[in-house]
Amino acid sequence: MNSFGSLFRVSIYGESHGMGAGILIDGCPPGIEFSQEDMMPDLIRRKAGGAGTTKRIESDIPQIISGVCNGYTTGAPINIFFVNENTRSKDYSLFRRMPRPGHSDFVAEHKYEGYNDIRGGGHFSGRLTLGLVAAGALAKKVIGGIKVEGKLTEAGGIDVSHYTAEQMDLYMERIQTEGDSVGGIIKVRVGNMPIGLGDPFFGSVESRMAHMMFSVPALKGIEFGAGFGGSRMTGSEHNDRIIDKAGKTSTNNNGGINGGISNGNDVEFSVAIKPTSSIFIPQETYNFEDEKLDELIIHGRHDSCIARRATVVVENAAAIVLADLLITARGINTNLFK
Amino acid sequence: MNSFGSLFRVSIYGESHGMGAGILIDGCPPGIEFSQEDMMPDLIRRKAGGAGTTKRIESDIPQIISGVCNGYTTGAPINIFFVNENTRSKDYSLFRRMPRPGHSDFVAEHKYEGYNDIRGGGHFSGRLTLGLVAAGALAKKVIGGIKVEGKLTEAGGIDVSHYTAEQMDLYMERIQTEGDSVGGIIKVRVGNMPIGLGDPFFGSVESRMAHMMFSVPALKGIEFGAGFGGSRMTGSEHNDRIIDKAGKTSTNNNGGINGGISNGNDVEFSVAIKPTSSIFIPQETYNFEDEKLDELIIHGRHDSCIARRATVVVENAAAIVLADLLITARGINTNLFK
Amino acid sequence: MNSFGSLFRVSIYGESHGMGAGILIDGCPPGIEFSQEDMMPDLIRRKAGGAGTTKRIESDIPQIISGVCNGYTTGAPINIFFVNENTRSKDYSLFRRMPRPGHSDFVAEHKYEGYNDIRGGGHFSGRLTLGLVAAGALAKKVIGGIKVEGKLTEAGGIDVSHYTAEQMDLYMERIQTEGDSVGGIIKVRVGNMPIGLGDPFFGSVESRMAHMMFSVPALKGIEFGAGFGGSRMTGSEHNDRIIDKAGKTSTNNNGGINGGISNGNDVEFSVAIKPTSSIFIPQETYNFEDEKLDELIIHGRHDSCIARRATVVVENAAAIVLADLLITARGINTNLFK
Amino acid sequence: MNSFGSLFRVSIYGESHGMGAGILIDGCPPGIEFSQEDMMPDLIRRKAGGAGTTKRIESDIPQIISGVCNGYTTGAPINIFFVNENTRSKDYSLFRRMPRPGHSDFVAEHKYEGYNDIRGGGHFSGRLTLGLVAAGALAKKVIGGIKVEGKLTEAGGIDVSHYTAEQMDLYMERIQTEGDSVGGIIKVRVGNMPIGLGDPFFGSVESRMAHMMFSVPALKGIEFGAGFGGSRMTGSEHNDRIIDKAGKTSTNNNGGINGGISNGNDVEFSVAIKPTSSIFIPQETYNFEDEKLDELIIHGRHDSCIARRATVVVENAAAIVLADLLITARGINTNLFK
Repeated sequence: MNSFGSLFRVSIYGESHGMGAGILIDGCPPGIEFSQEDMMPDLIRRKAGGAGTTKRIESDIPQIISGVCNGYTTGAPINIFFVNENTRSKDYSLFRRMPRPGHSDFVAEHKYEGYNDIRGGGHFSGRLTLGLVAAGALAKKVIGGIKVEGKLTEAGGIDVSHYTAEQMDLYMERIQTEGDSVGGIIKVRVGNMPIGLGDPFFGSVESRMAHMMFSVPALKGIEFGAGFGGSRMTGSEHNDRIIDKAGKTSTNNNGGINGGISNGNDVEFSVAIKPTSSIFIPQETYNFEDEKLDELIIHGRHDSCIARRATVVVENAAAIVLADLLITARGINTNLFK
Repeated sequence: MNSFGSLFRVSIYGESHGMGAGILIDGCPPGIEFSQEDMMPDLIRRKAGGAGTTKRIESDIPQIISGVCNGYTTGAPINIFFVNENTRSKDYSLFRRMPRPGHSDFVAEHKYEGYNDIRGGGHFSGRLTLGLVAAGALAKKVIGGIKVEGKLTEAGGIDVSHYTAEQMDLYMERIQTEGDSVGGIIKVRVGNMPIGLGDPFFGSVESRMAHMMFSVPALKGIEFGAGFGGSRMTGSEHNDRIIDKAGKTSTNNNGGINGGISNGNDVEFSVAIKPTSSIFIPQETYNFEDEKLDELIIHGRHDSCIARRATVVVENAAAIVLADLLITARGINTNLFK
Repeated sequence: MNSFGSLFRVSIYGESHGMGAGILIDGCPPGIEFSQEDMMPDLIRRKAGGAGTTKRIESDIPQIISGVCNGYTTGAPINIFFVNENTRSKDYSLFRRMPRPGHSDFVAEHKYEGYNDIRGGGHFSGRLTLGLVAAGALAKKVIGGIKVEGKLTEAGGIDVSHYTAEQMDLYMERIQTEGDSVGGIIKVRVGNMPIGLGDPFFGSVESRMAHMMFSVPALKGIEFGAGFGGSRMTGSEHNDRIIDKAGKTSTNNNGGINGGISNGNDVEFSVAIKPTSSIFIPQETYNFEDEKLDELIIHGRHDSCIARRATVVVENAAAIVLADLLITARGINTNLFK
Repeated sequence: MNSFGSLFRVSIYGESHGMGAGILIDGCPPGIEFSQEDMMPDLIRRKAGGAGTTKRIESDIPQIISGVCNGYTTGAPINIFFVNENTRSKDYSLFRRMPRPGHSDFVAEHKYEGYNDIRGGGHFSGRLTLGLVAAGALAKKVIGGIKVEGKLTEAGGIDVSHYTAEQMDLYMERIQTEGDSVGGIIKVRVGNMPIGLGDPFFGSVESRMAHMMFSVPALKGIEFGAGFGGSRMTGSEHNDRIIDKAGKTSTNNNGGINGGISNGNDVEFSVAIKPTSSIFIPQETYNFEDEKLDELIIHGRHDSCIARRATVVVENAAAIVLADLLITARGINTNLFK
């Protein structure tokens, strides 16, 4: 269950305040030039430090534990690990008694019978997304010419294009000062897509992509092409007219996918990120020790809008899916790649 | 790729105008009373015949080919088959030359190098969802007390609760008369959920549910709980307060799921269904024979709002996911079920 | 659990005395010419009718239910079905009370709590191997130049090459007259193997091949190359010297596989088939009704040496594995196939 | 492909002369007491140091990287890592030019286009079996009362029970002095087996066990119960009579498995281990640089009979399969465990 993919397959592991977090990648072709440097630009995009981001800042240097030799992938499983450095040894047992609203505290305590590592969210921590970013950096090399790009389009309900970077920073600082948080919307566009990736039904591009996307913490919705808005169109508005030999369409309401299969137009989808669950405003929750409603005050280091740092996570997670789709299609539909 | 599930596993097969369509179910516990009659109510809900639905009406009687003996599941794989009866032998080659906008014609032709069965959409046909409904009827028995219910909440952009059934029928007839189509939104609510189903990351309830949902033809979006709307809330609004010992929350913005795991509140999600791609209004598309834009007129039998008949498909597909989640958790987290 | 394969994936279903038995094949490339006729030669090799074979003779005509159109595979899942014709309606409940030695009666009764279909062995029947033969016939077309051949090398402990067909028939008839049965050994040789199929550890050619082989009923051992005999050699005897540029070796003690990966020499392995469990000599077994040891006499129609008819099953099951190995490697190790 | 298991799932990674080797375990129930100490006894059994074993001796201390907190499994993925210490930086490029007979050098060079890490065998190294031993130590705790035991029964073709430990050591030293190697046979017996683990066909106990076993390097054969010998018996000899209410049988020619499902008797199987491929006697192999047959002399540190150290690997690998079988059956066949 901690694995994803048919041939290009990733498995994640680790905890927020344990030894570290990482990802194991299987099915990567040999001979791909790959090193720490290839991951750093995307890891830096994910990094905290901007306005309204957590004060927990780590160097986040990936260690390639296996599967790469002399700067090239060897064909063996690739394990990439991030050591935890800046962990605080405070007492987290409060969250066992008084689970934080919107967090996994309550379900983890129940499902794992109290054995879950609760420190910093344990295995549920957003820190685990480091592995997704790292594997995505590799996946981008696997998919070659296919270009995937994630962009934050909305934050706190406001269209990002209306803001300058400076205004956005001020807004985020204000939210953080208030002890509150906001959500956002990220849009992904995949260009230079081959026609023919994906399969009807359970192997559809949408199925696999959505499966992966909902692995990203705080993500609560996804829509392809016109999505929910498209459900309010008529068929004559929604149908994308094919206008040339290459299959280009006049509109892209289907988000580049028909019958679960890529049609060569850009694959486009948007995801909804909920506001960060950790807020500093006092909240009510159930106190399981005293068996009554109680007030909870959370201290710590958090992002006021996790959607900002999640953008590269979403982008790279998409790249992982694309690498798997490509490799799988190459095996079965050889003629597509001649 | 035509399979879904870890332990309770379904595989679909068949074509619209071939011998029939069906589903193979693996991992079903033995001793469950199951017969044709158990599937009929849901199959009737899926059936055409109402206002604005296709004129292709079939008896849709499921045949249990294997895995059931003396009225009970045996523990062996269950194959359920629907014979095709009312198929028309018209010439579909037009759609190879002039692929229908919004349809799989173009991608299928390309991916399968022209070998795909194009008659009536072939393997891409909505007829394949018969299997999902049938397997879902069985899954509902596997999940016992867990109650899953799908409801059409919006059709053609209009809130269904504002319409009487009669008004809705008139509306659908008008759309069909115009040769056009509309989309819709279906809401699923799962009651009586145990706490603890699902896993963090790739095994999350959202990941698995979304994976399955995007197998349903024409489905282009999904959101859990407050979903996209939730991305516009603040954290202090969005966080669901836990208000009792059982984990009940005051709101359900997380749709009954935290950290990928069910929290015991209702699992709630909505899906967006695009307008039926088959419309009778003339449309432009590329003519691959004459190598130019051309006008296409589609004749035939179609639904003006496929979302109506898709409601039970979505509901039953959800039941399949729940059965798999339940059986999987029972294996690993035995204490949850003591 | 009733499925096998990474990309070229088979799932079997059916019962001995139910409606029929079949196989569902996923991941088959489109454009392969395929019809009933392609399966018949192998199905005839599996057929009863020779000396010492069961008197249950069926026409065993495969029906292609889906996935083939106009004589070619379409890329959609292929369902092949065999209707049961010659079933006897006798009472099988005796075997619930007095499970047959060497059979699945006891375990099935226990595992499925008495709900298993016991008629003719139900889902455990050798009749299910029809599907393996059918899918193997298709797999042979997928693997193209790779040639797989199974041969019965030993029957009843006697080297088959010492016998004429006539002598063998007499021997088999004698065994059947005595109401007893014998086992055998089948050797498989795969020629024209590409170098590079398979992966180290869990994806090794041996792992996947053995996994499939032990799906064949009555199969209790497998050895690759020198196998058990090889464990009694010294390293200097066992090591296969590489003697040319293509990787040809002077001996083939490793059975064409090193480190789990094919080395281009013939893949060679042998499997041990136990004597048919159904014998007509009276046998002791436990009577669960009377709670005492009791004598059981089995009547019916059986093979005295199932290894004979199993030869083509083993050969075709091997072809299924090879198709999956080939398609998988083609996806990841594209350079192998340039 | 580097993963095994349905719910209790292991993935291995690492190289002989890279940073280290390890295993990632998914699907482990929470609340199992587990620490380094639990692995040490089995790791010590695997350790070199005895007569005829390699001179490469490492401390082989497992590090639990994730999934264990306060001495108990948390329910999150468990990563166990072994740092490489005693690696030699000699030049391995000779083996690219002149692949060692019986080794993976030739296939790896070809499959991975020369990008494979060849140092010390890279990912193909027997060192990777450390992970199997570690995961097996955990699996033994998961399976609770089920007892699995591996024993070397034959070494160099000689019945081990005829030898004292001292004689065996002398024999191994002699083989090593000669620069040669020998193989062996390991027998595994699993006691206290529940009835009902495993499934017919692809999910059979034999299929899953054999799949895992052939992941162990140098393993070239497996037989259950009477195995190959059983193929030379008659049915009346081979059939195991059921003699009591619990399903106990008078003989165990089926190795505790009927129809792929455990029958409650001991599961018994033997595996054949080939002689260590690394020998110091000069050998002929093809020189791919000079394009001619050439003499190869291997220097280094190796075991003269790898079967000795493989015994615990085989035992623990079997425990991993049993854990997966148990957890899977618990999910589907709940009544078995009431």
